[in-house]
Amino acid sequence: MTNASSSSLPSDHQASLIDGKGFAAKMRQHIREDVLAFHEKHGVTPGLAVILVGNDPASEVYVRNKAVQTHHAGMRSFMHMLPENTSEAELLALIDRLNKDPEIHGILVQLPLPNGLDGRRVTNAILPEKDVDGLGEINAGRLAVGLPSLIPCTPLGCLLLLRDQLGDMKGQHAVVIGASNLVGKPMALLLLAEGCTVSIAHIHTRDTAALARQADILVVATGCRELVRGDWIKPGATVIDVGITRIKTDDGKTRLVGDVAFDEAVKVAGRITPVPGGVGPMTIACLLKNTLTAAKLQLEGSAE
Amino acid sequence: MTNASSSSLPSDHQASLIDGKGFAAKMRQHIREDVLAFHEKHGVTPGLAVILVGNDPASEVYVRNKAVQTHHAGMRSFMHMLPENTSEAELLALIDRLNKDPEIHGILVQLPLPNGLDGRRVTNAILPEKDVDGLGEINAGRLAVGLPSLIPCTPLGCLLLLRDQLGDMKGQHAVVIGASNLVGKPMALLLLAEGCTVSIAHIHTRDTAALARQADILVVATGCRELVRGDWIKPGATVIDVGITRIKTDDGKTRLVGDVAFDEAVKVAGRITPVPGGVGPMTIACLLKNTLTAAKLQLEGSAE
Repeated sequence: MTNASSSSLPSDHQASLIDGKGFAAKMRQHIREDVLAFHEKHGVTPGLAVILVGNDPASEVYVRNKAVQTHHAGMRSFMHMLPENTSEAELLALIDRLNKDPEIHGILVQLPLPNGLDGRRVTNAILPEKDVDGLGEINAGRLAVGLPSLIPCTPLGCLLLLRDQLGDMKGQHAVVIGASNLVGKPMALLLLAEGCTVSIAHIHTRDTAALARQADILVVATGCRELVRGDWIKPGATVIDVGITRIKTDDGKTRLVGDVAFDEAVKVAGRITPVPGGVGPMTIACLLKNTLTAAKLQLEGSAE
Repeated sequence: MTNASSSSLPSDHQASLIDGKGFAAKMRQHIREDVLAFHEKHGVTPGLAVILVGNDPASEVYVRNKAVQTHHAGMRSFMHMLPENTSEAELLALIDRLNKDPEIHGILVQLPLPNGLDGRRVTNAILPEKDVDGLGEINAGRLAVGLPSLIPCTPLGCLLLLRDQLGDMKGQHAVVIGASNLVGKPMALLLLAEGCTVSIAHIHTRDTAALARQADILVVATGCRELVRGDWIKPGATVIDVGITRIKTDDGKTRLVGDVAFDEAVKVAGRITPVPGGVGPMTIACLLKNTLTAAKLQLEGSAE
């Protein structure tokens, strides 16, 4: 297996596409049904509070999408849009109020925060059972030691796609490129918990291509567009591309590209997520899932 | 480098031994001096409470060694030896009392606990700033996201030996065999924070030898005696052997062996920890270090 070369593939080989968009749509439908059942049982509708500080245009788009999809899933959506000059004390006071509010089951602070606000302190102020982004220390710690936790949305989305595609991943070699707290590190811990052998590459890695070529499962989250070339991929591997960058094309338009050179990779990989339509739609679907999970934790004491 | 074979080493090659015993002795001396300086400054002597439940003979030896060395380092040592039939409520009440006791800066519950006591719940009851074993969720989470934390003693000991031997480890490929919460996982996160490319192998890994052969730094913590053979090691690699098993020899005596077949490995590795005298003595030295760190956290708000 390890020494297979791309010449072992037929010349017209095409990876099958992992349809994250379709999977996310099905997830949202299931969540909608679960939200109704939850309301039936408890007389309570899960509520998500999203806090945006400042006027970053990209963040405004993200936050609006989150609010709309929360609403579409039958949940209550609360937006808190605060001015750029909000003090940390004001922000922490708002989080404290939301922590105590029984109508709010999930709290999310859109990152990055404006200068002067400590993202770590703010994130950790959210009650662990309302921390639907899974970025607080308690959830990170529970994930690290293998306990149930609220899991960061993007790596959770990747995991759900992988489970759907591959089922049991025990013993497979998963290589994660990128070691961020948001994606790479929680992804590595999740794959470890699935029984994968896990390698983590990053900016200091000497020969990322050689490591990537060993991967049965390759997850790429670097923010470097088209970093991973076709010859970095082991024939038949499953490739999850978390990257998303908007580039200008020759005709003056723009298009989205990932961290994987898709046109090359599709000729070698066994399965691959496209960009757009792969991992992207899973992130918000997982936020909705986490909000429902958080509501169950708070009203039922467990999420099962 | 990657393709180097052992034939590139002279036939009489011998790895240099990493003297954990000597390093730990020096650490203890430094800690003793720091403890005196801390007392000078605050009029307070750091205190460590060790709790043992039941009569496991190996645990009794460990606990006694910890108490003696704490005392030798100039700190106050408090032993709490409870009977096998101690209830979880009683144990949690003791931890609560020690959490509130200003004379106690570190609390350690010797594991494993007797059946019926939930080790996870008990460990998490210790205040994070007194959790000198670093096993609670808050410290695990802080380690996972790269924040200062109280770090589990054995992986901390391995890290200090590696830093002393290698200095900057950025870009080196570290392979950790074993994925426990106690050693393997925190070790992997520590090496990642040093800038290493990190791979984690475990019971489900298909070809552990092939992965090990890529390691510039190989840390082995499996509990399988002499699992790692000479031909698993890249020539010149640094090998840290966390394992320790007592075996019977032909003459009816016993001796300690590690997870690495030492006689083979010493002919290939660049540096290697012996068993005994390698990692073992570092664990208690790091417990003393963590107790002093904990005292600084509590009296100075930081450990620097």
